[in-house]
Amino acid sequence: MHLSDVTHPNQLHGLSVHQLEQIARQIREKHLETVATSGGHLGPGLGVVELTLALYQTLDLDHDKVVWDVGHQAYPHKLITGRYNDFHTLRQKDGVAGYLKLSESPFDHFGAGHASTSISAALGMALARDLQGDDFKVAAIIGDGALTGGMALEAINHAGHLPNTRLLVVLNDNEMSISPNVGAIPRYLNKMRLSPPMQFLTDNLEEQFKHLPFVGDSLTPELSRVKEGMKRLAVPKVGAVFEELGFTYMGPVDGHNLAELINTFNEAHKIEGPVLVHVATVKGKGYAIAEEDQVGYHAQNPFDLATGKAKPSNKPKPPKYAKVFGNTLTKIAEDNPKVVGITAAMATGTGLDILAKKLPKQYIDVGIAEQHAVTLAAGLAAEGMRPVAAIYSTFLQRAFDQIIHDVCIQKLPVFFCLDRAGIVGADGPTHQGMYDIAYLRSIPNMVLMAPKDEAELQRMMVTGINYTAGPIAVRYPRGNGVGAPLMEEGWEPLPIGKAERLRSGDDVLILGYGSMVYPAMQTAEILSEHGIQATVVNARFAKPIDEELILPLAKQIGRVVTMEEGCTIGGFGSGVAEALLDAQVPAQVVRLGVPDVLVDHATPDQSKATLGLTPSQMASTILEKFQMAELSTNTLQKAQ
Amino acid sequence: MHLSDVTHPNQLHGLSVHQLEQIARQIREKHLETVATSGGHLGPGLGVVELTLALYQTLDLDHDKVVWDVGHQAYPHKLITGRYNDFHTLRQKDGVAGYLKLSESPFDHFGAGHASTSISAALGMALARDLQGDDFKVAAIIGDGALTGGMALEAINHAGHLPNTRLLVVLNDNEMSISPNVGAIPRYLNKMRLSPPMQFLTDNLEEQFKHLPFVGDSLTPELSRVKEGMKRLAVPKVGAVFEELGFTYMGPVDGHNLAELINTFNEAHKIEGPVLVHVATVKGKGYAIAEEDQVGYHAQNPFDLATGKAKPSNKPKPPKYAKVFGNTLTKIAEDNPKVVGITAAMATGTGLDILAKKLPKQYIDVGIAEQHAVTLAAGLAAEGMRPVAAIYSTFLQRAFDQIIHDVCIQKLPVFFCLDRAGIVGADGPTHQGMYDIAYLRSIPNMVLMAPKDEAELQRMMVTGINYTAGPIAVRYPRGNGVGAPLMEEGWEPLPIGKAERLRSGDDVLILGYGSMVYPAMQTAEILSEHGIQATVVNARFAKPIDEELILPLAKQIGRVVTMEEGCTIGGFGSGVAEALLDAQVPAQVVRLGVPDVLVDHATPDQSKATLGLTPSQMASTILEKFQMAELSTNTLQKAQ
Repeated sequence: MHLSDVTHPNQLHGLSVHQLEQIARQIREKHLETVATSGGHLGPGLGVVELTLALYQTLDLDHDKVVWDVGHQAYPHKLITGRYNDFHTLRQKDGVAGYLKLSESPFDHFGAGHASTSISAALGMALARDLQGDDFKVAAIIGDGALTGGMALEAINHAGHLPNTRLLVVLNDNEMSISPNVGAIPRYLNKMRLSPPMQFLTDNLEEQFKHLPFVGDSLTPELSRVKEGMKRLAVPKVGAVFEELGFTYMGPVDGHNLAELINTFNEAHKIEGPVLVHVATVKGKGYAIAEEDQVGYHAQNPFDLATGKAKPSNKPKPPKYAKVFGNTLTKIAEDNPKVVGITAAMATGTGLDILAKKLPKQYIDVGIAEQHAVTLAAGLAAEGMRPVAAIYSTFLQRAFDQIIHDVCIQKLPVFFCLDRAGIVGADGPTHQGMYDIAYLRSIPNMVLMAPKDEAELQRMMVTGINYTAGPIAVRYPRGNGVGAPLMEEGWEPLPIGKAERLRSGDDVLILGYGSMVYPAMQTAEILSEHGIQATVVNARFAKPIDEELILPLAKQIGRVVTMEEGCTIGGFGSGVAEALLDAQVPAQVVRLGVPDVLVDHATPDQSKATLGLTPSQMASTILEKFQMAELSTNTLQKAQ
Repeated sequence: MHLSDVTHPNQLHGLSVHQLEQIARQIREKHLETVATSGGHLGPGLGVVELTLALYQTLDLDHDKVVWDVGHQAYPHKLITGRYNDFHTLRQKDGVAGYLKLSESPFDHFGAGHASTSISAALGMALARDLQGDDFKVAAIIGDGALTGGMALEAINHAGHLPNTRLLVVLNDNEMSISPNVGAIPRYLNKMRLSPPMQFLTDNLEEQFKHLPFVGDSLTPELSRVKEGMKRLAVPKVGAVFEELGFTYMGPVDGHNLAELINTFNEAHKIEGPVLVHVATVKGKGYAIAEEDQVGYHAQNPFDLATGKAKPSNKPKPPKYAKVFGNTLTKIAEDNPKVVGITAAMATGTGLDILAKKLPKQYIDVGIAEQHAVTLAAGLAAEGMRPVAAIYSTFLQRAFDQIIHDVCIQKLPVFFCLDRAGIVGADGPTHQGMYDIAYLRSIPNMVLMAPKDEAELQRMMVTGINYTAGPIAVRYPRGNGVGAPLMEEGWEPLPIGKAERLRSGDDVLILGYGSMVYPAMQTAEILSEHGIQATVVNARFAKPIDEELILPLAKQIGRVVTMEEGCTIGGFGSGVAEALLDAQVPAQVVRLGVPDVLVDHATPDQSKATLGLTPSQMASTILEKFQMAELSTNTLQKAQ
């Protein structure tokens, strides 16, 4: 059987280990070939090929349920659940998603994109099963990185308390999240990995016996027998922490040994109550380059399979926002020892790896633990430090309560730096940074900034560091800057709450926020070709809004357009609308941004076109909404 | 020395155990007397009197830092840090707060109201200390209930990884959150409490030796010696879980034995790196009635000290919303076995205790773990159940990401029931339910309801259960209903997204949401006395807004007022404003609600008056904003 023939995972039933090994090889080939061509996650999937095959051979996927944590390690799952033929469309518009998705396949039993959710969801399914008198199996597969996320531990606390609820948790321990893991739990897991069960027991006991004062180096036959008997009893068992928390612990198992995995899963299925199978895997397994550089090959843009090198881009690109952030923060931190950068397991993604290398003492990685990261930052701020919490917009959602309760209510000067705010592209709905303006704007004491380009990000970095009256946040997009000239140092802070007028015109007032300022200018150019003259303002701050500049302009011009890369419900445009209504400025307002929909995976440009957010589309909307076509000397069609 | 003389905790230094016992007795007296008179938290504070005194005797509060989790157990702390004389103003407007508050005292080093934040904050302080080359001590005091909250476990994972960071975690183990604790961690703690260290070791080993096949009931002298030696070695140590996670574990300690506590804390301060002192306390200690009924006396309204009975209210009150919720849900669940009620350690507060008693199988308490609660609900929904997540508005903030990622993106039919939405009164800023409309409204697929009274809550309960197309939420206030007649059964569901017109008038359109509908009607009455006729609409839904009803009315009337008990930034009023602007209805809009401020503790009526939300204040604002005074035949003063 070839992988391409596998359209239902139950077809794996009855295959020999040798046959499964062949399938495994084919999965790796297809996986590598696809990611090398299209980009995507590499290391996580390659590490769980055998785990997936072995688990699925012991399950009946017509009835049993599988919940994959995060979802980026589920490419092997996708390849054996009917998506082999479409797999070349991975992460492309209308193609196979990069994460799991309920609507994509009947075998995606629960979607994911964020970490640490799988045990909760699986336990919910298991409880539903028992309440409905059903009897299928439920498995959650969670990485050791995701296990440090608080909600996974909440779920373990709950599941461990339910001795009659059958639940299989497969711990995919590759010793990594994206970066090497942080914390006592990963260290504990590592200790177990290094000491296979029986080996550990024997060595440990032998050692202990030697140190008994009355025993020394030689054992009498009677003591030898005692020693043997004790092995099964008193010695701390591997996995004791999980056992104490109510789980049956099995492992560690070699995650690339199919026979061992199958045996272990079969044994695990016999156990009543919660069971945790600890599987030791190698991230990037089977592709030497990825095994070697596990951080670099967690996910990749298109690359050459033979060399592992990224395919050269057609033209040089401006630096990424993350890199500008990292460089600028590092420079600031060199001069200010109170500055500390905090990441939740996203050193490379956020650009904080630059700080980590240069000033390791001023860098803290807390692991996948956004809630803790934010309150830790609040604690640092309370003692006079200048904490900078660098967390993607979508992941900061997880610390919403901590932002309110620990930071904003106490008005502590934590500086939040939200990368990947707005449309994120191929990662899809779970990763879109859509809600941050709305959810941060409603909290008292919060200040919100967004730069129009990477040079303004530099100025906002010093603005944020200099602002000590309370919390402040800056959001910026995923990917590359626009090519604005950068300064090496000497950035001038911006006045809080002050906007910048970029262009003047009497017909319409366009207020751009962050990444939408350049598109606002382009829109104004298009409108100008239609004889419509726009004033364009770079708002800079969504809170406080620069009412001093904006209200008189709105009153005078009467037609207001807001542009933002975020949800229009409660977002920047709503803030402008609120200000105008409160001041009783009778203006028409058109709010452009992301409406009340989920934005699927696609390139950012494709998403923007779908949402009507290209400059020509926006110009067209403006002309239409304000019924200004009659003012136009040209037709819109001409401009497009 | 009398307690009233203690204005600085360092005054405790040098007091004998006997003297501290007297102070302890005085603290209990003052604590009991105050709560019996004013209401407030009772059991938590009474349980930590000795813990507080012992800890503070070993600290220098001019330099050392103490972070109390949740804060409701910090009354003893308040009584020895300069607030004895003002303590009778507890939880009253402008009086001593019921929780910790940075701005209230230099000894409140970090505020709290929500659970599980203390270790993160304390670790932040400890890291700040080390980075700044300082050397004070940092202690976090956390309850066993709060320890099941994910962020506390995230903090332990991080702290346990920092062997050189001195941090004291005091585990106040009273075996309770508000209700008895849920989960494997509390069970593990309980096991340790029941088995004091040496006792545990001996029993355990004896038992194990007996079961060795070659030993049986009798031991040779040699084996006896082995047994003795083994005690110190191979037997699982009490606290092994914490030790494996990098903490030095000390305990369990009798939490009411001052000498033992002081000795233990002194020893703990000598340890480099993170240390956890496990203190066994009795909730309500020293007041027999509270020791007996630990759930009932967690917090209390004013009561008679001798009998423990609540002081009779002047007049009979309508039932609490929580009770109506609990009764109605129980009735619904009796007829529909798919309905499951979920609480995060708030059975009595939410009214789910009624369900728990009647239909225990359809009730799930997950402990203090809101994130897990929501994703567990998503898992239940994915398998066809009808999960009802009953979580206070303020605590649901902690599951914001799970609501987006696990529920709304997947459009799973979870029914969120948000008690204590709006102004909560004496609990103050950490507990105000201000943000839910704003933070839930921006998420695609969410439906938001709020009832005008307890009878409408009943209808919204069946509406929520019947709605299976996706997630839906209902918010309702803390406290008693308005006295609307309730039905025992046969509630008619409401059409989704449809509002209800209550009153007609041509001068102003008032849109009330939830608890502000009756005040809207009262405001209309006052306006009527001024010759201003208002149309009043009970909006019922903040999402979707009933544009069909509201837009034509707004167009016709031209003056729109929104009323909500929630933040006006991004809230219901913003939703109305967005709808009007999007539809280009040229109306004036006045949004009444809670502006961009933190609302301090006070009675709800006092807070409403401060915020200008009484009917007469709102009538006055409307007349002023719309410059309608000239339309009025009477003067406003007359109505007031």
